Amino acid sequence: MAGLLTLDDVQAAARTLEGVANRTPVLTSATLDAAVGARIFIKAENFQRGGSFKFRGAFTKLSSLLPSERAAGVCTVSSGNHAQALALAGRLLGVRVTVVMPDDAPTGKLDATRGYGAEVLLFDRFTQSRDDAVAPLIEDRGMTFVSSHDDPLISAGAGTAAVELFDDVGTLDVLVAPIGGGGGMAGYATVAKALSPHMRVAGAEPAASGVNRRSMAEGRRIEIAPPQTIADGQRLTTPGAYPFDVMCQRVDDVVLVTDHDIVDAMRFLFERMKVVAEPSGAIATAALLAGHLRVEGARVGVILSGGNVDSDRLARLLAEGGTAGE
Amino acid sequence: MAGLLTLDDVQAAARTLEGVANRTPVLTSATLDAAVGARIFIKAENFQRGGSFKFRGAFTKLSSLLPSERAAGVCTVSSGNHAQALALAGRLLGVRVTVVMPDDAPTGKLDATRGYGAEVLLFDRFTQSRDDAVAPLIEDRGMTFVSSHDDPLISAGAGTAAVELFDDVGTLDVLVAPIGGGGGMAGYATVAKALSPHMRVAGAEPAASGVNRRSMAEGRRIEIAPPQTIADGQRLTTPGAYPFDVMCQRVDDVVLVTDHDIVDAMRFLFERMKVVAEPSGAIATAALLAGHLRVEGARVGVILSGGNVDSDRLARLLAEGGTAGE
Repeated sequence: MAGLLTLDDVQAAARTLEGVANRTPVLTSATLDAAVGARIFIKAENFQRGGSFKFRGAFTKLSSLLPSERAAGVCTVSSGNHAQALALAGRLLGVRVTVVMPDDAPTGKLDATRGYGAEVLLFDRFTQSRDDAVAPLIEDRGMTFVSSHDDPLISAGAGTAAVELFDDVGTLDVLVAPIGGGGGMAGYATVAKALSPHMRVAGAEPAASGVNRRSMAEGRRIEIAPPQTIADGQRLTTPGAYPFDVMCQRVDDVVLVTDHDIVDAMRFLFERMKVVAEPSGAIATAALLAGHLRVEGARVGVILSGGNVDSDRLARLLAEGGTAGE
Repeated sequence: MAGLLTLDDVQAAARTLEGVANRTPVLTSATLDAAVGARIFIKAENFQRGGSFKFRGAFTKLSSLLPSERAAGVCTVSSGNHAQALALAGRLLGVRVTVVMPDDAPTGKLDATRGYGAEVLLFDRFTQSRDDAVAPLIEDRGMTFVSSHDDPLISAGAGTAAVELFDDVGTLDVLVAPIGGGGGMAGYATVAKALSPHMRVAGAEPAASGVNRRSMAEGRRIEIAPPQTIADGQRLTTPGAYPFDVMCQRVDDVVLVTDHDIVDAMRFLFERMKVVAEPSGAIATAALLAGHLRVEGARVGVILSGGNVDSDRLARLLAEGGTAGE
C-alpha cells in the first residue's frame, strides 16, 4: 500500500458493497438534540448485516482475494463482531472461514459464528498465545489471515458508512466515532477530511483504556494491559499499525468515556430511541451526552457501530449503571 | 363525520404532521425475509415521537380544536402510549392536557406523562369507573375528551404512517398491523384499500382477546372481560365504534397471536434487528414469524406500532418466553 488510505479506496469499497451491505438508516431525536444542544445524526450500523459495521470491511476484504486465496480459505482470531461478520461474508462469497476463539467466549457468540457457517476452533487464552493458535491455519492449511482492524481494505470498507452518512445529511461540523483497533475510525476520518477538510473528527474510547489517545499524543503505538471495561469492542492493547498512521493525520482528538457514561447512553438509546446498542456501539453517543465534547449548535455525525448485546446483559448493565465492572 | 374515513382525510392529517411527526424509517432484514419466506417491510413507529404511533393521531386531533377548546384544555383516560402522545402533542401546541390514570399504573408511565408536562390525576379502578373519573374534567373544567382510538382524527393521523410506507416501498400485496381499539388499523386500512384495492389487510390481536375478530365475524361490537395478555396496548374490552365500521369494510381478516409468539418476535426484533418493540408493537411481526398468515413470496408491510417497554420488563419477558402470564 503506497501511502495512506484515500477516498477513492473507500469509494471502490462502496461499489463492492452495493446491494450486499445494508444502507443503514440515519437516526435523529429531538430529545437527544435538546440534551446535547446540537443537531445529532446517528449512523445506525447496529442495523448492518451481522449486527455491526464489521461486515463492510470483512466483505470488502474477502472480495479482494485471488481465486487461489479464496479456495484456501481465511482465518481470524476474534470472539466478537469481526468473527460473525467474516463468517457471514465468507458464506456469501463461498469462502471457507475458520475463526479461532478463546474457549471462554460467550456461547452466544460461538453459536452466532457457527450459525453463519464458519468453523470455530477454541484455544486456551491463558496457556496459548493468539499467534500460536492461528499459526497452524496459516502455515499448514495455507489460509489467509484477516485482521479485524489492521488492514487497508477493512478501513476502506468501514469508511463506506461515512460516505452514506454525508450523502444522506450533507455537511457536518463534527464526526464522532468509537476507536478500538482503529480500523473503522481510519475509514471514517479519511472520508470526513477528504469531503470536508474543516470537519472535526473525534474518537471515543473507554477511560479504562486510553491506548489510542496516549499513542496519538506520543506519536507511537504504546502497549497496555488488557483494559477492564464493558466496551468489549475496545479491549485491544495497542492500536493497529495501519490505522494508527491514518488516525495520526486525520483524527483531531480522542475523548475518554467511562463505563458509567456508556451505560447512560445505552439507556438513552434503548428507552428514548428504541434501538439496541452494545457498549462500544453507544460510546460515541455517550461522549456527547456526557459533555466530553464541545459541540453546542453544531451539526454532529455519530457512528453507532454495533448492537450485539443480549437482552440479559443489557438489562443487567442498565440495572447496575455500569459500576459493576463486569 | 359523514361516512367512513377517506384517503383525503389522511392526506390532510399528513399536512398537519409535516415537520412535526418523525418520518419513521422502514426496516428490512434478509434474515426475517428468509424466516417468513416473503419480502417484509417494517414501518418502525417505535421511532415515532413519544415512542409509538399514537403521536400522529394525538397531534392531528389537538390541531383540529377551536381556539376556545384549546384554551380549555383536553383530557383523556389512559395508562399507556396515548397518555404520553397526548401530553407531548399538548406541549407542542400549548394545550393543557390532563390524563386520568389508574393509581396502580407503572411509575415509569406516570413519570413519562408528567415529563411531557401533563397533569396526571389518579383514580382507583376497583372502586371508580373511568367515566366517573373523567366526568368532572369535562363537566366542571370544560375540557375536551380525546379518545385514544374512537375518533376519526385519531385514525386519520395514524393512517399517515401507511402513506409514508407505501410512498417509500411501493405497492405491497399484504399489510399487517396490530388492532387494539382499532384507531390505528382504521387509518392504515383506509390508505391501503384506497391506493391498492387488491391489497390484503390483516389485523393481529392477542389470542387471549379476539374481540375484534369475533366482533367482525358477528358484525357487531361484542364486549369481553379484560383479557390477560402481555400486549398492554390491546387489552380493550370492545372495539371503538368509529373504527369498527371502517374495519368491517376494509380489513380482510384478523389473526390471533399468543403471548409466546409475541415474545419470540420481540426477541427476533431485539437480537436480529436491534430494535426495541413492546409486546403490541411486535404482534404483527409475530403473526408472520409464527406462520399465522400465508404470505409466501409476497411483499408484506408490517406496522411496528411502538417500543415503550423498559429494559427490565423486556429481559424478563425474553427470559420467561411469554409463558409467565404477567
